[in-house]
Amino acid sequence: MKRFIVSRLPAPGRPSPLSREEGRHALQVYRLQDGDAVEALDGSGGSCRAVIRVGREVTLEHSGASRALDPSAQILPVTVELAVLKGDAMAEAIQKCVELGASTLQPVLTEYMVVKLGGKGEGAFVARWRKIADQSLKQCGRLTRLDILDPLALASLPKARTGELSFYCDEDSVTAERTESLVSASRSAGSASIRLAIGPEGGWSPADREHLARSGRRPVSLGPLVLRADTAVAFALSVCAAMTRPG
Amino acid sequence: MKRFIVSRLPAPGRPSPLSREEGRHALQVYRLQDGDAVEALDGSGGSCRAVIRVGREVTLEHSGASRALDPSAQILPVTVELAVLKGDAMAEAIQKCVELGASTLQPVLTEYMVVKLGGKGEGAFVARWRKIADQSLKQCGRLTRLDILDPLALASLPKARTGELSFYCDEDSVTAERTESLVSASRSAGSASIRLAIGPEGGWSPADREHLARSGRRPVSLGPLVLRADTAVAFALSVCAAMTRPG
Repeated sequence: MKRFIVSRLPAPGRPSPLSREEGRHALQVYRLQDGDAVEALDGSGGSCRAVIRVGREVTLEHSGASRALDPSAQILPVTVELAVLKGDAMAEAIQKCVELGASTLQPVLTEYMVVKLGGKGEGAFVARWRKIADQSLKQCGRLTRLDILDPLALASLPKARTGELSFYCDEDSVTAERTESLVSASRSAGSASIRLAIGPEGGWSPADREHLARSGRRPVSLGPLVLRADTAVAFALSVCAAMTRPG
Repeated sequence: MKRFIVSRLPAPGRPSPLSREEGRHALQVYRLQDGDAVEALDGSGGSCRAVIRVGREVTLEHSGASRALDPSAQILPVTVELAVLKGDAMAEAIQKCVELGASTLQPVLTEYMVVKLGGKGEGAFVARWRKIADQSLKQCGRLTRLDILDPLALASLPKARTGELSFYCDEDSVTAERTESLVSASRSAGSASIRLAIGPEGGWSPADREHLARSGRRPVSLGPLVLRADTAVAFALSVCAAMTRPG
């Protein structure tokens, strides 16, 4: 069933309009028609069944309660602190964050970063990332939005707090063999929340590594091979899921 | 350092030619020049340091022993039985298999498959998949090729053997809550080898599920959200790594 995000869920007798873009998508891409059954999401954990109504605008009409799902069971207490990557790589990494249940994405500006946010302005980038995340949310059935924060310089990342595990993934092949693996480092996580910094294509600079260490983050290795960014994100979140999810 | 695959590693006084395509890539894409240092791989675990020699053909000249790496530490005893996917999705899933250490990829033909291998012939597909895997191997530093087998119909998959864990990932949202998670199912894996069947975009058909069950494969859930194929592959391999790799 197709899913749509609305700012307010439809209630009985109180339909919700789709945004112009979502409405066009519903009719022209999905080829939905008046009366078709869909699911409405509010991106904050709420959902209900709905039918499409096509008039001067496209609206969703409440048609019943939704899946009895616990939104929190879909989410890991993990914040990914991701170096801003080039277009496609960033999109794929964001999709992995959504599908694999990261709660928060903190984009990070690093020294060896390839992308420059200056031209179009940071706001345009963040808006695009949030759109990618919303598409992914609808596809994978997640009920709560990935919280995408405004980019921060690496030196401004908050210090690791007590009761929180803070790591940075370091794939420097020289040091990787001596670095603790994320698997072993997260084994003791229990229900602690986790912060995971993941570097850019060019790796961390020496200054980046100093900032990371000074802010209380521990280096962890993601294994014996050099992973592309979206694979690194997927591996790290999967390991966190394996180590912290019951069952 | 750039890496190249050659059919035979260069030895002192006995250089190895690059294939025409690899030679062109070295000069025109990487802009390497006579005397540049590279790494030579044979795809079977062997490697050595080499320098590029540019003459009538491009050759690699032995220049020393390579990284003292244990190729087997890079590989998980996991065979991914992957439904054949559309072009890009298949490429991304193959890259995940290489980067995350699957030993073998068994492409599988399923009932709801979107791709038809008939036209160009299976051989052309398999050749393309092997090329994608080789590119990925060079990027991630893996020493042993992902073994990509010829496609098999789902009904012809070998039966699960004793001492081997055989799963199929089932994301049917109706049954997912009742299905054991891969995390819990692989917890007892130890050093057993694992077979993991991963379905196509359209999911398994009822007949597919019957074949899978009859061949001794157990359904496992990949968690509460619906994953795209390459994310499913990445999650499954990451969980296997977390559950079976020491440290």
